[in-house]
Amino acid sequence: MLPAPYPSTRYIDAGTMVRLVNRKGLSTCISGIAERIAADFRRWQDFDKSARVAAHSTEGVIELMPIADARRFAFKYVNGHPKNTRIGLPTVMAFGVLADVATGAPRVLSELTLITALRTAAMSALAAQHLARAGSRVMALIGNGAQGEFQALAFRDLVGIGELRLFDVDPAATAKLMANLAGQGLQLRACSSIAEAVRGADIVTTVTADKANATILTPEMLAPGIHVNAVGGDCPGKTELHRGVLERASVFVEFEPQTRIEGDIQQMPPSFPVTEFWRVLDGTHPGRRDDAEVTVFDSVGFALEDYAALCFVADAAQQMGLGETLRLVPQLADPKDLFGLLCQEAGVPPPTQPPVWAGALS
Amino acid sequence: MLPAPYPSTRYIDAGTMVRLVNRKGLSTCISGIAERIAADFRRWQDFDKSARVAAHSTEGVIELMPIADARRFAFKYVNGHPKNTRIGLPTVMAFGVLADVATGAPRVLSELTLITALRTAAMSALAAQHLARAGSRVMALIGNGAQGEFQALAFRDLVGIGELRLFDVDPAATAKLMANLAGQGLQLRACSSIAEAVRGADIVTTVTADKANATILTPEMLAPGIHVNAVGGDCPGKTELHRGVLERASVFVEFEPQTRIEGDIQQMPPSFPVTEFWRVLDGTHPGRRDDAEVTVFDSVGFALEDYAALCFVADAAQQMGLGETLRLVPQLADPKDLFGLLCQEAGVPPPTQPPVWAGALS
Repeated sequence: MLPAPYPSTRYIDAGTMVRLVNRKGLSTCISGIAERIAADFRRWQDFDKSARVAAHSTEGVIELMPIADARRFAFKYVNGHPKNTRIGLPTVMAFGVLADVATGAPRVLSELTLITALRTAAMSALAAQHLARAGSRVMALIGNGAQGEFQALAFRDLVGIGELRLFDVDPAATAKLMANLAGQGLQLRACSSIAEAVRGADIVTTVTADKANATILTPEMLAPGIHVNAVGGDCPGKTELHRGVLERASVFVEFEPQTRIEGDIQQMPPSFPVTEFWRVLDGTHPGRRDDAEVTVFDSVGFALEDYAALCFVADAAQQMGLGETLRLVPQLADPKDLFGLLCQEAGVPPPTQPPVWAGALS
Repeated sequence: MLPAPYPSTRYIDAGTMVRLVNRKGLSTCISGIAERIAADFRRWQDFDKSARVAAHSTEGVIELMPIADARRFAFKYVNGHPKNTRIGLPTVMAFGVLADVATGAPRVLSELTLITALRTAAMSALAAQHLARAGSRVMALIGNGAQGEFQALAFRDLVGIGELRLFDVDPAATAKLMANLAGQGLQLRACSSIAEAVRGADIVTTVTADKANATILTPEMLAPGIHVNAVGGDCPGKTELHRGVLERASVFVEFEPQTRIEGDIQQMPPSFPVTEFWRVLDGTHPGRRDDAEVTVFDSVGFALEDYAALCFVADAAQQMGLGETLRLVPQLADPKDLFGLLCQEAGVPPPTQPPVWAGALS
């Protein structure tokens, strides 16, 4: 790999990302990200993995999620502030960076607020492809906020879900979800309780926002063979499942050291058995064993999913010619002469060659 | 604190930072950053501190350095790739973000390649104000690369250094440093060995780049009363001091858990005594005890210094009206309706109010 002739960073802002996703198509993007996640999870051992670094406050959490293989370093900045919606801000905001491991140069800076919802849905659906019963058609969706539509469409496209049973403590959220999903080929039913939504469902997706030890699902709600896609329990003190649900299920996680801290299994002793999902993809674990097994994907969101999503976005932006060039790093006439930069009042001199962007990452 | 009417991020790129530093003046910037570092180190207990997260490769290291108090979260991205200069890239490249703890919104994105050199020099000089002998006038500067000029000027302005003795394995680096420092009121002497440079110096600053267990300073070079400002030993496997230097000195560090991993004291057992420098600033440790004591500041660079520097830059940029607005985070008509964003083909709608930038951080 050759370095860029100078260190420029391709920047994909929120508006550009909307254009990128709309032009490619939302379904194409979710499927494409799911494929990249699957490919990267299959080469799990190639990655330098760590639990994310979290700064907790009374209002929420801010996290950094780094990961690297031999070629690329990626990280995501992401917050979780459930009360943000009261003042007009999203609960979750995110951006991320891809850099060259060989030089440390940051090559791509991208919004990830929108893309986090796509990659979370892609990861959920990918797990359900392997953990839900074959022929699953009905999904209960508990929590109808910002991620609801993406979960619904990912499960429609990748799992074959045709019917959604919706519940949220805020009926306006459910109404919004139903309006957005009209005409998408999904049968929609608003339910008046979680139990009503879950009854008869093949899959239950929980994606609630409250930072609390909630009990969204209890053991008596769950019929044999159901798959639980537990997305919202993703932070110390933020869980969704009654511990009895975990006790009667086979539990799958992304990266065990992180999920022990953040997932619903934070309620369980350290010896509680779980399986890292990459083992199912690489065939060393069978996944679901029979049609009566209750399976739980205790999803918290792992850096490798963002790595995969950032690579997808970087490639798509390059193919489509989207994004601006940032001069985040100075161009030095002599790389040992940082001080000399101050003598150029004009700042960064004009480039002598066109920038090489994400292509140089490949 | 009120949130911004929409989440915009003030962006200070490399060229803008050059203008900012030149208009304010380099000395003013270094002194201003040193003052902010001192103020923040005095309120050490206010911060949620952790050792930085490092991804090591054969060519170098990429690090994330997060820190937060009750109001602001900051992080820096920084690499260290000693061979970069061979292909025209800086050894160290950096950028950073300031965010609101209350909402998680990223408020400032700034280049930090230049600013890292300023804050490192500011931290070094601040430590020397308290740890070097009163009346120190002569400094040996070992390693004359990208950080040399900033170290020289910080020690001139904040410590009273009038004479510099220079050494680098690359004579071109020393020549560059001498050319850049001409007319800055410093007596400069190129030396042909480290021992020659160190003989008679009040302070020795080591700021070398090789990722190796080097022995830049040995015990016999050090006269009683000397202060060693050891900057370049900042990574596992990257040290500058012979362990005998550490054994005969009083050693001061920034954040002990990080320095045990990264500093020159990585050579010493975990019980080797060190003092966190904030204790000197807050008066719970006397600092230098007498004129014969050998003192070492085993500096590795801590996130709090970048927090202080980012706050300085954010305030200066606001006062001076510098920086652009990034739309890193989407503006949602309904914060629970992320999907609705895709229905606005134009992407982010125009703001209805002017952006509130760093001011809202205060």
